[in-house]
Amino acid sequence: MLRKEYDHIILLAHGSPDPLWKEPFESLYQQVSKVYGDGNVSLAYMELTSPSLEDVVAGLKGDFNTVAVLPLFLAVGRHLRHDVPKQIDALQRENLRIELLPPIGDDSLVKEAMQTVIANHLGKV
Amino acid sequence: MLRKEYDHIILLAHGSPDPLWKEPFESLYQQVSKVYGDGNVSLAYMELTSPSLEDVVAGLKGDFNTVAVLPLFLAVGRHLRHDVPKQIDALQRENLRIELLPPIGDDSLVKEAMQTVIANHLGKV
Repeated sequence: MLRKEYDHIILLAHGSPDPLWKEPFESLYQQVSKVYGDGNVSLAYMELTSPSLEDVVAGLKGDFNTVAVLPLFLAVGRHLRHDVPKQIDALQRENLRIELLPPIGDDSLVKEAMQTVIANHLGKV
Repeated sequence: MLRKEYDHIILLAHGSPDPLWKEPFESLYQQVSKVYGDGNVSLAYMELTSPSLEDVVAGLKGDFNTVAVLPLFLAVGRHLRHDVPKQIDALQRENLRIELLPPIGDDSLVKEAMQTVIANHLGKV
């Protein structure tokens, strides 16, 4: 698949009132930032959990041309159609263009992995 | 990984007021049921979108011993800690035991796929 590459990716998870909920997202972020550097990847939450997207964008250091927000969501609903684009619009600056990517669950690699997990549970793989 | 195998898997997604939101879950379900048969897999929604878990369990045909609910969620929060176990408890019958699995996002295959998607967006793979 041909992909555009980005200088910095902000992983954006939903957020939850449950403090334990964020653990898998923190863990994913730790894994990725350990390999690719925490200058290349950040983690933010849409609501209820900090840091917010606004906090993370305010804290970005360095000269980035292309920053992308990659939603750690499985599907597009009103959050990704309305709330997140509105948050991003408010954060655009002349020297910092932020692009919203499709949700990670939309990627064929994640879809294929989910199909395999289901097949494994059925004992079919 | 050693896995227990199940006679029937109910994929359980969150549900949304947005009618387009369910498309990727329907698509995943179509893919899996095409390969493994719709007698082996069902799709239900926790709230807001039909069919509910209750609808799907009521419609199960055949003699199943081990039915598992596989949440199409990325993380465990109050829904999977409280709401879904309560829904499942109300549906247990003597001849139909229903087991709640960890969410699909907890599986190492899905975690690895998500790491690869992020690395791809950074141009590192």
